[in-house]
Order: sequence, then structure tokens, then C-alpha cells
Amino acid sequence: MSGIMEKYIEKLDTLDFEKMLGGDFFLTWEKTDDEIAAVFAVADALRCLRENNISPKIFDSGLGVSIFRDNSTRTRFSFASACNLLGLEVQDLDEKKSQIAHGETVRETANMISFMADVIGIRDDMYIGKGNKYMHDVVDAVTEGRRDGVLDQKPTLVNLQCDIDHPTQCMADMLHIIHEFGGVENLKGKKIAMSWAYSPSYGKPLSVPQGVIGLMTRFGMDVVLAHPEGYEVMPEVEEVARRNAAKSGGSFLKTNSMAEAFAGADIVYPKSWAPYAAMEKRTELYGKGDFAGIDALEQVLLAQNAEHKDWCCTEELMKTTRGGEALYLHCLPADINDVSCKDGEVEASVFDRYRVPLYKQASFKPYIIAAMIFLAKVKDPQAMLKALEERGAARQMLKL
Amino acid sequence: MSGIMEKYIEKLDTLDFEKMLGGDFFLTWEKTDDEIAAVFAVADALRCLRENNISPKIFDSGLGVSIFRDNSTRTRFSFASACNLLGLEVQDLDEKKSQIAHGETVRETANMISFMADVIGIRDDMYIGKGNKYMHDVVDAVTEGRRDGVLDQKPTLVNLQCDIDHPTQCMADMLHIIHEFGGVENLKGKKIAMSWAYSPSYGKPLSVPQGVIGLMTRFGMDVVLAHPEGYEVMPEVEEVARRNAAKSGGSFLKTNSMAEAFAGADIVYPKSWAPYAAMEKRTELYGKGDFAGIDALEQVLLAQNAEHKDWCCTEELMKTTRGGEALYLHCLPADINDVSCKDGEVEASVFDRYRVPLYKQASFKPYIIAAMIFLAKVKDPQAMLKALEERGAARQMLKL
Amino acid sequence: MSGIMEKYIEKLDTLDFEKMLGGDFFLTWEKTDDEIAAVFAVADALRCLRENNISPKIFDSGLGVSIFRDNSTRTRFSFASACNLLGLEVQDLDEKKSQIAHGETVRETANMISFMADVIGIRDDMYIGKGNKYMHDVVDAVTEGRRDGVLDQKPTLVNLQCDIDHPTQCMADMLHIIHEFGGVENLKGKKIAMSWAYSPSYGKPLSVPQGVIGLMTRFGMDVVLAHPEGYEVMPEVEEVARRNAAKSGGSFLKTNSMAEAFAGADIVYPKSWAPYAAMEKRTELYGKGDFAGIDALEQVLLAQNAEHKDWCCTEELMKTTRGGEALYLHCLPADINDVSCKDGEVEASVFDRYRVPLYKQASFKPYIIAAMIFLAKVKDPQAMLKALEERGAARQMLKL
Repeated sequence: MSGIMEKYIEKLDTLDFEKMLGGDFFLTWEKTDDEIAAVFAVADALRCLRENNISPKIFDSGLGVSIFRDNSTRTRFSFASACNLLGLEVQDLDEKKSQIAHGETVRETANMISFMADVIGIRDDMYIGKGNKYMHDVVDAVTEGRRDGVLDQKPTLVNLQCDIDHPTQCMADMLHIIHEFGGVENLKGKKIAMSWAYSPSYGKPLSVPQGVIGLMTRFGMDVVLAHPEGYEVMPEVEEVARRNAAKSGGSFLKTNSMAEAFAGADIVYPKSWAPYAAMEKRTELYGKGDFAGIDALEQVLLAQNAEHKDWCCTEELMKTTRGGEALYLHCLPADINDVSCKDGEVEASVFDRYRVPLYKQASFKPYIIAAMIFLAKVKDPQAMLKALEERGAARQMLKL
Repeated sequence: MSGIMEKYIEKLDTLDFEKMLGGDFFLTWEKTDDEIAAVFAVADALRCLRENNISPKIFDSGLGVSIFRDNSTRTRFSFASACNLLGLEVQDLDEKKSQIAHGETVRETANMISFMADVIGIRDDMYIGKGNKYMHDVVDAVTEGRRDGVLDQKPTLVNLQCDIDHPTQCMADMLHIIHEFGGVENLKGKKIAMSWAYSPSYGKPLSVPQGVIGLMTRFGMDVVLAHPEGYEVMPEVEEVARRNAAKSGGSFLKTNSMAEAFAGADIVYPKSWAPYAAMEKRTELYGKGDFAGIDALEQVLLAQNAEHKDWCCTEELMKTTRGGEALYLHCLPADINDVSCKDGEVEASVFDRYRVPLYKQASFKPYIIAAMIFLAKVKDPQAMLKALEERGAARQMLKL
Repeated sequence: MSGIMEKYIEKLDTLDFEKMLGGDFFLTWEKTDDEIAAVFAVADALRCLRENNISPKIFDSGLGVSIFRDNSTRTRFSFASACNLLGLEVQDLDEKKSQIAHGETVRETANMISFMADVIGIRDDMYIGKGNKYMHDVVDAVTEGRRDGVLDQKPTLVNLQCDIDHPTQCMADMLHIIHEFGGVENLKGKKIAMSWAYSPSYGKPLSVPQGVIGLMTRFGMDVVLAHPEGYEVMPEVEEVARRNAAKSGGSFLKTNSMAEAFAGADIVYPKSWAPYAAMEKRTELYGKGDFAGIDALEQVLLAQNAEHKDWCCTEELMKTTRGGEALYLHCLPADINDVSCKDGEVEASVFDRYRVPLYKQASFKPYIIAAMIFLAKVKDPQAMLKALEERGAARQMLKL
């Protein structure tokens, strides 16, 4: 037997991740380094199986429930792909077609959709202090439901983006970096610039920059967070980044200069986001139902935004990175100058040059999600990977 | 062999249900006592298989088509769960995205969606005289389609709520009662109160109270239907209840006093519904396209409604039930005082005390739907249950 | 072994279709006669398997992505049925729920939805010069994605209707004709009338008449295209029809008389469509965002349309066909006199008499789509059909 799973199994044998069984995935910094490493190992293993036409299906039936409280293409398809790969059928909870408007509690809805659900994936990133809280409410409800004998199984929550973190995105980003640099052991001392960039739309989520500094600081890299004054992210997450950096032997620095962040960087991630303080204010106005206030705030933010059109990932800036060849990252879709808008986050020629690696970056997300599910559901992941290889069920029959 | 299916098979061996093969499920009172009992036995058997991690998948492919003409969360997820459990993929007919507005006939649509459909589940409960009729039109069309060689199989209709009955709900309610009371043989002489209760929304379907009195009268129980004057249900269904009660050795009584209904009751089901006569009038106005008339009717009904805020399931009323501990039922979501509205169907403390049994009540619906499909599709259900246990395919691979 | 696949395998053995592997299906006239014949043979074979309760599932997992830029019932269900039959789960890209409005490029979206997609089915028929172009953009993008290592597989495109052709419809129509006439060898010299007919709605797609004359001219039939002056179809497609007819030994004629087209016809296909020139103008106005212009154009077209209410498939006209018994075709839904509208494409009594064959006509579409996928994905279709029969997996377990 060729043993294509061997190296992944050997890696997993060195890691302690048994607490993931039955668990959920909210924020990367709630997981240990070993647990993060286990997700990467399983994601690579599942990809290896599929690319060798071996089915990693572990469920014969069961639902993967999705709740998208914001539009989504790539995360929706990534979740659907991950569920399908493992044997679960996606059932979307479209809150417009449901009776949730009746004033039904989260506790009740969570149980009602979970009688045959193995996974619940939620995107809820619109209001500060809301999304992650909602996910916890759902998990508390199904945990109780399981304990009380209402549910036959506790579905696993996968955070598909909240107000704090975007773990499936940032872990896919990180796995892409690991592959591009030939292994996690090659990342020590590498410089990564997570930088704000201008976009004509003002309210992009904070979860990506927060997720990036909360995760990328764990691998001994020098992480620089750059943004104009007033575009701060959540202070709690900066604190996480500082702690991570100290522990991993890397560093975490902040600057208000994009040039400083890019200088000598090995990796750059220029992306627009909204100021944390403004998002908090918006949440407060929303809570009061003050929609005129929200409109007024938006005008102020757009004006503030327009002062920073110079925050763009230009060819000139890219030349200042390590060898002029830093790895350019983006969660997509990007605002590209003269393509999706006049002034945006990145010059078209830069974006075009990195198109293939950008698409590869995105390609890891379905496997990251599948790995999160796998580790929450499978008692002995190493034995399961071995069993899947030995079963050798074809993903596509008679494929040559 | 341990034979976990044995007791269900033995039960089925005592029942005559062969006419269900190839049939449909419209109204519970169109089924014999044996057929109703067979649904319960198969629902319990399928649940037993799944809870023992044995897959009850009987289809390798095929569609379960859903048509929801009213919002739904629980029934939508129950139908999806049931189909998925048996191996069918749900395909929803969203009438907004279809060409049905072109003036296409029901007969045509029904055939067009059924080339690979094994099941069609329909919710159509908005207008008196319409929903059940529509379901029959669909079944007539696919029956003809099968006869004429258009269809390879006749899909089975499952009524997911019509204007007359809500069979998947009421059978789930009943199976819950059977489990709570330790067997159908313990129900003789038990008192169940199906009572109207106040809700700030005026137009809730009649199908639940009608379904309850049409089904619960079959088991020798004393069934009391309570509502304020003017909130009568369909007289034909009351007639069904009376006949059932006479046959089963139970009773069917009506009262305009909630207190009388609750006094000494073993089971209470307090729930809002709209007056039948008003719903008939609404249907008539709708038929004429008289939307101003509908609005005016709504105002009258809301005013009428507001006179009955005292029809609430309070702690005080619950104390008057058998030992103060009647089983409280609701199809959910309930209108809970000071939770979903100021004045509603039930006091929050009552609802909270019964939360776990209420969620369990709901958990039977996917299995009831799956059992209805199973009995319509499987030639020899006992042999199939045996075969499924013997096949022993894991619902989740290597689950411990 | 009974060998129910034998005759299909023998047929395929006589055909050269190896270039279909890995390919796409845009327009029927881009395929050779052998390739068209292979689609028919595989469609019949898959139907034979399913009707004998043998599963033709060749995928263990994988997605079939659908993009519907226009409403659809039958094509949506046909695509879902075909994917499900082969083992793929449908994931719809609802552009309203996606981030595509962000100005994302087709190239990017196409890759983002394809990480685990084996098939992409697209309906985009609204604007001349747009739909087919969009499909090519998608295919170009995923072809590049595959070449660049972004995608593990290149999904196959199935054209579910574009501005030029409606290949899954017309091939289903043709397979129906072949079955009705007892084999493709019986079609030489048969007369088929593709005729315009009046409908109160003015903007029906040209893809059906174009698809019909582009395909039906390949089988030695006498194809007549009839329409009022001003209702011309795309000249390029007429050219295709002329070339086909010359090559197949049939003929292609145009007339402005419905009576002439029907006289002695073996098959009639009366259906409304919009004038090509008007559709081009509409596309131009749309490009400029001139919605007032579009409204004005619509008024002109409706007035023009109303002059041709006499173009109706009446009993009288049907009497003039071969033996008064021509096979009546329609892609459905039809505009039926006094049923879906006052004046329409066909008299109710004609439509009713042909209802069963019309529904059968539609029943071929899921199999045509499945065959297109099968031939693009399966390296050795004959070996696969044999393997599927030998595997003998039941579509429904223990079906009698």
C-alpha cells in the first residue's frame, strides 16, 4: 500500500487535539497551536484524498445547516463543498422564508433546525458585539438540547465570519502561505503586512484584519498592522496579537504608514475595513432604530474614507517589498483600480500578476471547513484517514 | 443478532396497512387505525436505526420536491431531514423563481417537477377550500402522468399542512403523547384539552386544532375543544371527531370555557386560531380580489380577538389540571407573554417549564414524515427494516 | 447476464465522440453528427438503467452548480434531476445573495464556485449577444483555472438556454421525435414546421426556433420555418440550417404563411418568439441604460404582435397536416386559447389531445442533460455503462 495518508497521520500523531472532538470553531485564538496545526494537517489530507479520487465521505446522511446573515458567494460555496465532500446535504435557513420573524427565540430555532444536523455554519458579521454572541447562543442552545435528550447529536458550529474573526478565511490564507513558503518551519522571521487600503465602500468587516493579526502572529513572523489614524481594530484582538507574538518569538507592530509596513515585507495583505469605533457607533444607532443617524454616520465615514485614497497597493509599493516579490494576499473580491472602481485597494497590474496565487489562496477554504468538521466529529482522525484510504471509494467512478 | 428492529416488525405484523403502498397522505381521518399505527411504528423504527447509527437510506438517488406556499422553518427542516435520511435530495419549487406565473396549469407543473421525484411535500394553508384541493389536483395529475407513461414513478404526496389538517404535526404530537404516557394503551380515559388561546396576530391556521380533534379522538381519550364564541372550527371536522370518539370509546365535547377544558386535564394544547367563518369570508374576498375588504375584515377580527386576552395558559389554570401537571403541548412557535408579545397564548414560566418536552414533541416530525414516505414506497416494510438492520450501514462512519 | 446496456453500447461503438471528454455543450451545431447521436444513445441508456431500478450514479460527491439568470421551472428541475441521478448535489448561485454585485469579474466568480464543481449549468437568454458570450467567459475562466492548478478538475458547462440556442430543449424534442417515429432512420423526408404563433407576451426567446432549425435539419427532414414578416431569427442560424439540410439530404425553407408550413407536415412546433432585430435593439437600449426606450420599444412590439392573432395552431390547421395527425410539439408552458389567455398559440382542444406526448417530450430533458455530463466526464462511456449494469446498485432498495 502506497500510504498517501502516512505523512498526515504522522503529523497528527505529534499533536494534542483531542479536545476538538464534539467542539466548535469560534475564534482561532481559542484553539491551541496543536489544534490549529491539526486543522491544517487534516485539510491537506482531505485535499490529498480528493485529488487522488478517493472519497473522504464519512457521513451517509445528515444535514449541514447554513445561516447567512450577509451576502456570500465564496464562503457559501466553500461550506457547501465541504459538507458535500463529507456526505452532508446543505440546508440553508433563509430567515426570510422562516417563521423567525414571529419573535421566536434563538434557543428554539437552534433546536428546531438541528434534529438531523451535524454542522451549523453561520455568517453574522454586520454588527459589533452581535455575530459571535449569536453563534454562542446557538451553541448553548444545541448543547442544552443534546443534554436534555432533544437532539440525537450536538451539531458542530463553524464560524463562517463574525464581528470578531473570520477563521475559515484566515486559516485558508495561512495554509496558502505555508504551501507557498514550503512549510510552517520556514516562516520564522518573515514579515507580513496587514494593511488598510482604500475602497469606495466604507463599511467592510473588521473580521479579516482582526483574524489575520490574531492568527498570523502565532508562527514567529513579524506582523505589521498598518492603517490611517482612526481605523483602529478591536483593542482586545490587538492584545491577542501581542501575546501571540511574544509567545511565538515573532513580533507585532502597528504603524500609520503603508510604506513602512510594505518595506521589506515577504507577504502583504492590503484591504479596506471600517473603523472599529464607527462600527460600534453604528451598532448603537441600530439598537435604537436610528436609521437617520446611521445615514449621517455613513456620510461622515465616506468623507473620512475619501481622504485616504493614497492607501493603495501600487506597483511602486510592491517594489519596496522583499525582492519586489512579496506574496500578495486578498480574501476577494478586491476593489481594483479602473476595474471594479476608479480608485481602489490595488492597481490592476499588481492584482493580475497575483491572480493565480489569489485563486489558490481561496481554494483552501473548503478544505479548512471540512477539516474543522472532521476534527469535531471523528473520534480518531488518524484511524479514519487510514480507513478512508483503505476503503478507497472512488470520488468519481472509473476515473482515469 | 441483537434484533433492534424486532419489536417494530412484530407490531407491524399485527397491522393491515398494505393499501398505503403507492398512496398519499392527505388527512389522518382518511387512514384506518391500523395505518395510523403503522406510521407510528415505522417512525419509531427509523428513529431507533438512526439513534443506533444505522442508516435507513433506501434511495440511492431521487428528489423530494417541496412546495411551501407559506413561510416555514420547522416543517421545511423536518421535510428536508426526512428526505435526506431516506436518500432523497430536496428540490424546492420556489414559485417566484418559476414560470408558473405564466398561467401554467397545476396539472402541467405537477408532471414537470416529477420526472425524478419520489415525494412531493406541500404546505398550502392560507385559504379555506384551496390547500387540500390543490394537493388533490397535484396527485390527480401525477397519477394520470404515471398511468399515461409520462412518469417512471408516481411521487407520493405528503400534506405538510393544508386548510383542513396538519397531519405531520398532529401525528408528531400524538407520538410524543404516546411516548410520554408509556404507550397508546395507557391513553383510554385521559382528558385532552384543545383550547383556543389569545395571540396578537389574528389569522393563524385552523389546521392544528382541526388536526388534533380529528386524530386524538381515535384513542379512547376524552377530547375537549374550547374556544370563545365565534371561533368555531370546520363543522365537518367536528363531525369526524364525534364519529371517532364514538368508535374509540372516548368522548368529544365542546365548551366556551377554557377553565372547564383545563379542569382535570391530562394534556393541554392552548393555541390561537382564526374563526372558520372569517377565514371563509377572507377566501371569498380574496377570490374577488377585494383587498380593501380583506383589510377591513382584518380590523374587525383584531378587535374581536382583543376581547379574549383572558384566554391564556396561566400558572393558575395549569394548577387545575390533573395533579397540576398536565402535559403542555404546542406546535411552536408560541406567543409567550412578555417574551414574543405582551399578551399571548401562554405565561413564560409555564412555557419554560415545558421547554424540553415541547422540543421533544417537535423532534418526532422528521420521523413521521419519513415513515409516511417509507410506507408509501416500500413494498414489504417489515422485510425492509430487517434488511436495513442487517445491512448495518453506518450513518456516520466509525462513530464510537 | 441479460445485458440491457448491450444495444446502447453497440450503438456507441459505431460512433466517434472521444472529443467530448472534458468538453462543454454550447450549441448543437458545434457538435458532429456522431456526437449528437452519442448524446441520444447515452440518454436512452441512462433512462433504461433508471427505469430498471439500476443506479447510474458515477459520482460519490461533487457539485452541480446552476446559474439561472431567468426564471425556470422545468429546466431547473431537469438539471437538478440529472445531477442527482449521477451523484452530484445542486448548488444554485443566486446572484442576489452573492457578492457579485461588488463588481467581481466573471473570471473570478467562475473559479470561486468551481473548487468542487463537476458541472456548471447556465441559463442566460435575455439579451442578444450576451448569454452565449457569458458561458464562454465562464468556460475560459475555469479552463485557465484548471491549467494553472487552481482547480482540481475543469467543470463541464451545460448551456441551459442562451440567446442563440437551447440545446437541452431541442435535443429532448428531437429524442422525443425519434422515439415517436420509431428511430432516426425513419425521419428522412418527414416534414417539420417550426412556426411562429401569437402570444400576448411579446418577448419570448429566439433560442427555441433557432435551436430547432439548427438541429432538426441534420436528419434529412424537410424543415420549414414560418413566421410573419418582421419576425426573422438570427441570419447566422438560418445559414447553419441551410448547410445542415444540404449535408443531410433534407431541405430548409422559409415562408410567411403558417398554412403553407402546416400543409402535409408530419410534425408541427408552433410557438411565439420576439423579432431578432427588436431583440438586438433592446440589447442596445439596455446597454445604454435607456429604460424609457425599452418601454417604448415594447409598446411598438405589442402593437405589431397584435396584428398576428391569426397565427394560432387551430383544429382547422391541424387537419391540413399529414393525415390530420401531425405530432404537435411545444417546449411548454404554452399560451392556450381561453386557458392561459384569450388568444394564444394553440387551441385548447389541440393542446389537450397532445398533452400526454407533450409531457413525454419534456421527460427527455433530464436524461439529455445527464448524457451531456456523462460524455464530458466519463473516459470510456461503453465500459462505464457495462460497469453500471454489472454493479447493479438499486436506485430504490428492494423495489419490486
